Amino acid sequence: MKLSYRTLAILFWAEQAFASFPDCVNGPLKNNTVCHTSASPLDRAKALVAVYTLAEKINATGSTAPGVPRLGIPPYEWWSEGLHGIAGPFTNFSDKGDYSYSTSFPQPILMGAAFDDELITAVATVIGTEARAFNNANRTGLDFWTPNINPFKDPRWGRGQETPGEDPFHLSSYVHALIAGLQGAPSDPYKRVVATCKHFAGYDMESWNGNFRYQWDAQISQQDLVEYYLPPFQSCARDSNVGAFMCSYNAVNGVPTCADPYLLQTILREHWGWTNEEQWVTSDCDAVQNVYLPHQWSDSREQAAADSLIAGTDVNCGTYMPNHLPGAFAQGLVNETVLDQALVRQYSSLVRLGYFDPPANQPYRKLDFSAVATNASQQLAYKAAIEGIVLLKNDGVLPLSLNSSSSLGLFGDWANATTQLLGNYAGVATYLHSPLWAAQQLNITVNYAQGPGGQGDPTTGSWLNIWPAAEASDVIVYIGGIDNSVESEGMDRVSLTWTGAQLDVIGQLAQQGKPMVVVQMGGGQIDSSPIINNPNISALVWGGYPGQDGGVAILDILTGKAAPAGRLPLTQYPAAYINEVPMTDMSLRPSKQNAGRTYKWYNGTAVFPFGSGLHYTNFTADITSKLQDSYDISSLMSTCKSANVTYPDLCPFTSSLSVSISNTGKTTSDYITLAFLAGSFGPAPHPKKSLVAYQRLHSIAGGSSGTAMLNMTLGSLARVDEMGNKVLYPGNYTLMIDNGPLASVNFTLTGSQAVLDQWPQPPANRTKNGVTGFENYFVGGYGSDQAPLQSST
Amino acid sequence: MKLSYRTLAILFWAEQAFASFPDCVNGPLKNNTVCHTSASPLDRAKALVAVYTLAEKINATGSTAPGVPRLGIPPYEWWSEGLHGIAGPFTNFSDKGDYSYSTSFPQPILMGAAFDDELITAVATVIGTEARAFNNANRTGLDFWTPNINPFKDPRWGRGQETPGEDPFHLSSYVHALIAGLQGAPSDPYKRVVATCKHFAGYDMESWNGNFRYQWDAQISQQDLVEYYLPPFQSCARDSNVGAFMCSYNAVNGVPTCADPYLLQTILREHWGWTNEEQWVTSDCDAVQNVYLPHQWSDSREQAAADSLIAGTDVNCGTYMPNHLPGAFAQGLVNETVLDQALVRQYSSLVRLGYFDPPANQPYRKLDFSAVATNASQQLAYKAAIEGIVLLKNDGVLPLSLNSSSSLGLFGDWANATTQLLGNYAGVATYLHSPLWAAQQLNITVNYAQGPGGQGDPTTGSWLNIWPAAEASDVIVYIGGIDNSVESEGMDRVSLTWTGAQLDVIGQLAQQGKPMVVVQMGGGQIDSSPIINNPNISALVWGGYPGQDGGVAILDILTGKAAPAGRLPLTQYPAAYINEVPMTDMSLRPSKQNAGRTYKWYNGTAVFPFGSGLHYTNFTADITSKLQDSYDISSLMSTCKSANVTYPDLCPFTSSLSVSISNTGKTTSDYITLAFLAGSFGPAPHPKKSLVAYQRLHSIAGGSSGTAMLNMTLGSLARVDEMGNKVLYPGNYTLMIDNGPLASVNFTLTGSQAVLDQWPQPPANRTKNGVTGFENYFVGGYGSDQAPLQSST
Repeated sequence: MKLSYRTLAILFWAEQAFASFPDCVNGPLKNNTVCHTSASPLDRAKALVAVYTLAEKINATGSTAPGVPRLGIPPYEWWSEGLHGIAGPFTNFSDKGDYSYSTSFPQPILMGAAFDDELITAVATVIGTEARAFNNANRTGLDFWTPNINPFKDPRWGRGQETPGEDPFHLSSYVHALIAGLQGAPSDPYKRVVATCKHFAGYDMESWNGNFRYQWDAQISQQDLVEYYLPPFQSCARDSNVGAFMCSYNAVNGVPTCADPYLLQTILREHWGWTNEEQWVTSDCDAVQNVYLPHQWSDSREQAAADSLIAGTDVNCGTYMPNHLPGAFAQGLVNETVLDQALVRQYSSLVRLGYFDPPANQPYRKLDFSAVATNASQQLAYKAAIEGIVLLKNDGVLPLSLNSSSSLGLFGDWANATTQLLGNYAGVATYLHSPLWAAQQLNITVNYAQGPGGQGDPTTGSWLNIWPAAEASDVIVYIGGIDNSVESEGMDRVSLTWTGAQLDVIGQLAQQGKPMVVVQMGGGQIDSSPIINNPNISALVWGGYPGQDGGVAILDILTGKAAPAGRLPLTQYPAAYINEVPMTDMSLRPSKQNAGRTYKWYNGTAVFPFGSGLHYTNFTADITSKLQDSYDISSLMSTCKSANVTYPDLCPFTSSLSVSISNTGKTTSDYITLAFLAGSFGPAPHPKKSLVAYQRLHSIAGGSSGTAMLNMTLGSLARVDEMGNKVLYPGNYTLMIDNGPLASVNFTLTGSQAVLDQWPQPPANRTKNGVTGFENYFVGGYGSDQAPLQSST
Repeated sequence: MKLSYRTLAILFWAEQAFASFPDCVNGPLKNNTVCHTSASPLDRAKALVAVYTLAEKINATGSTAPGVPRLGIPPYEWWSEGLHGIAGPFTNFSDKGDYSYSTSFPQPILMGAAFDDELITAVATVIGTEARAFNNANRTGLDFWTPNINPFKDPRWGRGQETPGEDPFHLSSYVHALIAGLQGAPSDPYKRVVATCKHFAGYDMESWNGNFRYQWDAQISQQDLVEYYLPPFQSCARDSNVGAFMCSYNAVNGVPTCADPYLLQTILREHWGWTNEEQWVTSDCDAVQNVYLPHQWSDSREQAAADSLIAGTDVNCGTYMPNHLPGAFAQGLVNETVLDQALVRQYSSLVRLGYFDPPANQPYRKLDFSAVATNASQQLAYKAAIEGIVLLKNDGVLPLSLNSSSSLGLFGDWANATTQLLGNYAGVATYLHSPLWAAQQLNITVNYAQGPGGQGDPTTGSWLNIWPAAEASDVIVYIGGIDNSVESEGMDRVSLTWTGAQLDVIGQLAQQGKPMVVVQMGGGQIDSSPIINNPNISALVWGGYPGQDGGVAILDILTGKAAPAGRLPLTQYPAAYINEVPMTDMSLRPSKQNAGRTYKWYNGTAVFPFGSGLHYTNFTADITSKLQDSYDISSLMSTCKSANVTYPDLCPFTSSLSVSISNTGKTTSDYITLAFLAGSFGPAPHPKKSLVAYQRLHSIAGGSSGTAMLNMTLGSLARVDEMGNKVLYPGNYTLMIDNGPLASVNFTLTGSQAVLDQWPQPPANRTKNGVTGFENYFVGGYGSDQAPLQSST
C-alpha cells in the first residue's frame, strides 16, 4: 500500500499540476453533490470526500496533490506565491509573449511605508486578478501563500522585507486591506483567490548564532503573543475572513506550530472563530518533517505526520504526510475522521473558488492575458513605489534642479539595479526600470560608473572609474545599501552597518564638496548615521525594494516630479543594537540583555524612529474633533454591549476623530496622519507610545488643508496583561498626531478595569510526544537551542 | 598628477596583464643593469628602479601593475592563485583545447590528512610546472598567493578547507614540503614560481556574530602567537625561503597587520631573518583600504597607504596604494626610499624568476601545454585523494564485496558531485569524476536518486525517488555532508551538525536494515555521532574535497581497490561546541567561556580526535631506538651550540627515532606514524599532547613491517612561556606513537631551563594613528567589535 502512494506522488511531483478543472458536466462526478452548485460548499465537499478511498485521501494531503484520475479530479498545486505580484516556484511564466510577465509591485516593506490601505487593496486586487488570468491558462494555482505578516521585530531578519513593518496595528490594518483585494469581499459569490496568512506564529528568524528556523523554539510570553506577535493573525482570521493560514517552521513555547493544537485549534479556530468550512491550514515547506527532525517533538516520522494532522494542519507543503500517513494509519496513530476534516476544508475552499462550477457564470474564469500588466496596473506599481519612498534628510538640495546642462554622477551598486529592485519572491516583471535608465530618460548628462562592488568584493579595482565620473558631474547621487545578498530567506543579517566599503566610497565622493544625495536601498534598515552626520552629504532617501518601476520612482522623487511622503514603518537602530539584544530573545520589553524592541519599547536612541519621513513642504495638524476630558469605563462597555458585537475590542471608542492637516509650504504633497496613544495606564512597564490609527491624505496643495478621519476602537485603548487578556484600564491617555507631535489631546478613563478579551491559556503540560522513546542517536545532532544541548544565548 | 595615475590604472585594470617579458635584447633597457645576467638580483633591481619616475613607481604598487611602456616593462599581474591547482581570477583558461584545463588536486584539508610530505612536494611541483606552462602562454603570472597556512583552529571557519588542519607542527612541515615543490630548491638558478604564505597573521574568521574579517581585531597572547598562530609562518620565512607573504585583513592586538611594523618588520624580517632582497609582502585584497575603513587605524586614505608601505607592505592587492600614495607623497607622509625598497623587492623577485633573462637557458620557459595534466599528474591527483580519505567507522562491511549481481543504492547530495569535489579556489579540472560516475564504471547495478537536496531546500519532494531506489538495492551508500554552500570565503558555519534534513533521510535509509555506508564530505568537520550511534549504519568515511578524481577515489576505498590510511588532521567536535567558545576567542587554552581548542587543549570529549583513522587491517608499533632515561639540558644546549646553528630549536634532539610498524592483518595498507609528546613540563596548564613528528609508510603488506624514522629537534621538546619565548624545561616526557597509543617511551630532562628562542616583545604603545582626528561620522558605522562600540562577545 505504501509503495502505491509513493508511486503516485512520484508520478505527479515533477509536473506542473494546475491542469484543468474537474469536469462536472460529463465527468465521473457529474452526479456527485460536489457538482451541484445549489448545494452548500460544505455538503459539496463532504460528498466528494465520501467517495475517496483512504489512499486517495492520503494522497491529497500533500501540496502537489495528484488528484484522483478515476473520479476526474485533476492534479492541483496548492502552492502559489504572490507576495508583490505572482511568483514562482509554481507559477509558470512563458518564455515570451503572453504570460511571460506580470506586474511586480514594491516589496511590502516599502508598501507599508505608504500607510495607505486603499493602495494595498488596489495592489492586491491586481495580483489576484493577474493570478486568475494565469490560472485560466493553467499557469498557476488559486491558493496564494501570501501575506507574510509576522511583525518585523528584529532588524536583522532576512525576510523582514516581506512584511509591512514592525507595528502590529499597522500590520493588522494592512493585512485586512490586502486580503480584501486578493480574495474579494466575503459576500462575493466566488473568491478571487485564497490568501494565506503566514507564518503562524512567532517566526522572525532565519539563522542566528547556530539557531535555525527549522528547529528554533521561540519562547514567548502570553502578553507578548497577544500584544505583538498575534494581532496581524487575529486580523486575518477573526476580522478578514482569510481563506488559509500557514503554520511555521519554529516551535512556540516548546511545541512546533504545525503540531500545536493550542495555536491551531484553541486560538485560531475557537477563540478567533475561524470556523468557516473552507478555511484550512498548510504547513510551511516541509514543516511537518521538522516536527520530527530537528524539533524531535514526535518520536517517529509517522507520529509527526499524525500529530500535525490532528493538531489541525490540513495541507502539508511537501510530501511528508502523503509518505508517512499510511504508516501512521497502520500504527493507529490517527483516524480517518481527522483526515476527512482536512479534506473537507480543502475542497470547500476550492468550491468557494468556483473550482467545481460551470465557468460560464464566473467572471474570474473569463480573465485572460489582457487583464495582466494593464496600463492601470503599471501605473499602480509606480504609484506604490512613489508612496512608499521616504525622505530622511534634506538640507534643501532636494528636489534637484536639473536642466539640459546639468550633469548627474550616478554611483552605487543599486544605480543600475534591475532584478535587485524586486527583492525576494518576485515573478517576471513587466519591465525593470533602473535608476540609471530613469536618469537617462531626462534631458541631462548622466555620468555613471559601476561600483563600489558588493560586500563580497573587497577590492578597490572597481572604484577607479567612479572618481573621474564624479569629477565631471555637478550633482552626485549614490544609490546603494543592502540587497538580497545579505538579507533573504535563510539568511539574517549580522550587521546593521552599511556593507563592504560603501562608506569609504561615499565619504570620498562627499569630499568633492558637490551637492550629494544618498539613497539607502534594501528592506532592513542600516545605520545611516554616517550619512546624517556628514555635512557634505545633502540628502538621504530610503527606497526599499521599489519594484519594476523603482528607478523611475526614485528619480521622480529626487527631481521633484513627485513629492515624498512615505514614513519609515520600522525603527532605524544604531549599529550597536545587534549587541544589545540576542536575536533569540523574543521579549519586546527591555531587560538586562535586551534594549527593547520596536519604537514602543526600545530604550536607546533610534537613528530614525518609526514613522520618520520628511516632505518637500511643511505640515501642521489640528485635532478638530472634541474629545471628552473623561470616559467612564463601565459606560464604554455598556454602550459596546448594547451594540451586540462579538468582539468588544472592535467597538468604536468615539465617533471618527477629525484631524485637520494643513500644508504650510508651497509644494503639493501627500501627508500620512499617524495617531499614537501614550500614557501610564495598565500594567507597567508602559510603552513609549502605540500607533492606534493612520490615514494617508493625498495631494494637499501648498496653503491648503485636508482632513483625516481616524477611527479608534476600545481595542485602541486596551493594554494586554500578563495572561494575555485585553483590558481597558483607568488612567490618563494622550493622543498624539505624528512624531513630534504636531498636535495632541489628553483624556482620562475612569472606573474599574474591564476585560475586552479573555485569553485562553495554554495547557499546563506541553511535553514532547514520546520523547523518551526517541532514537537517541539524534540527540545532540542538531543546533544549539535544542534540549539536551545547552544554549549560551 | 593624481589624474594621470588614475588614468593609467584604469587603462590596465580591466585587462589581463601577464603580457610578455621585458625585451632585454633589443628593448630600451638592454643597457640597463637589470638586463645583465651577471649582476646580482639586488643590483639589477636597483638599476631598474633607479630609472623610474615617482609616478611610475607609485603605479607599480598595485597588484595589476601597468608596467612602464617607455622602458619596455610590460604590465604584470601579481595576483595568481594555486591552492590545489592553478586557478582564477587571474588565470586565463581557454574555452577549449590546449590550456582549457589543468590538474585539480584535493583541497589541502584532505591532503593534510595524508600526512605525506613527499606527496605534498610532488603535488606542488606539478602545480608550479603547470603554472609555468600557462605563464609561457601569457595565461597566468609567476606569483602564486598560496598556501593558506593559518591553523584551522575553529571548526566553523569557512576557509579551513584551504588549510592542512589544526596542528602547527603538521602545518609547518606541510608548508615546507609545499614551498619546495612550488619554488624549487633555494639553490636552483631560477625559481619555478613564487609561493606566498598567507594570511599573516591570526586570520581564521570570516563572519561571526557581527564580526567581519575586514574589521576584526584579533586579541592574541604572545604565548598563543608563538605556540600556535605563527609556527607555519616561521616555517615559511625562516626555514623554507618562501618568496612572498600576504598580510591579512584582520588586526592583531589592535594593529591591522598590513600596517604593523611589529609583525612585518620586527618578527618577519628581523627575527626570522627573512631578508633576501627578493622577498616581498602583498596585502590581502584590498586590505590597505581596510586599514582606513573599517579598521579606522589610519586617519585618512593617504595615511593608510603610507602606513602600510612604511610598515613593509610592498604590493597592494587592489588599487588603494596607486590611488592614494600620490596624495601621501604630497602630504609628506612617506618618502621615496621606502617606495624604492618595495620596488626593489618586487623586481629582485622577478629577476629570480628569470623575468629579465634570455629564455634560452631557462628550462621553465620551455614548458608548454604538454607539461599540463600529464598522465603522471592525473595519477598524482588520484593518489592524493586516496591517501587523504579517512575511515572512521567500520563494522566489517567495508571493503564492500560487490559482483555483477550486486545493486548499489547511491544517495546524498554529493553522490553526483562534480565541481563540488574541488572546493574553493579551483581552476578548470582535467575531468570531474563523480562517485556516481565511478560506480557506473563498475560491473554492478547502480540505483541512484537525487536528493535530499541541500540545506536550502526544506521540502521533502526531492526525496521521493530515494525510497524505491533504496528498496531495490543490496547496499546503500550515502554521500553527503557539507560543501561550499555553507563553508566558504566570507561565510563561516554557524552549526556543526549535518545540515538540512540529511539525518532524516539517512535515518530512514538505515531503517531498511541493509549494509549502509555514509561518506561525510566537506572540509570542516560535522558532528557524525548520529551516524556512529546508529547500529544500522555500518561504516563512516570522511572524504573532504577530494578533487577531480574524487569519486573514483571514494569508490576505490569503499570497494577495497585501495586501502584507507588517512588520519583526521583536525578534531571532530560535538555539535554543542559552538556554544562552548565564541569564534572571536583566540585563546587556545580553556577558560570559563572557552572549552579549549584543538586536540591539545579541548577539555570535552571529541567525537573523533585529531589523528583518527581506521584501516582494513591492524597495526602494532614498536619504538626500536633506544632513548636515554634522562637528558641534561645544558648538555643538549652545548651539543647544539657546537653545531653552530642559527636557530637552536632546529638542533636534533637525538638521532632519528626508529619505529617499527607491523601489519598484523591481511590487507596491504599504508600507515601514518604519528608521534606525540606529553608531560607536565613547562608552564601550566599543559597540553594533553602535541604532535612532534610523523611519517607515512607505504604499502605494508599483511604480516610485514615497515620502519618509520622520526626526527625530533630541541624545538620538539620546547614549550612557549607567556612572553613568547621558546624554552626547554626540565621534567618528565612521554613520547607516544599514535592515538591509543600503540607504543610509548618515557624520558626525563634535567637541569635548568634554557631559552631556545628569545621572542621580541611588541612595542608598548600601539595606538591608532591619529584616531582623534578621524572623521567622527564613521564612528559607530561598522560592526560590533570596533571601538567605540561595545561588543557583547
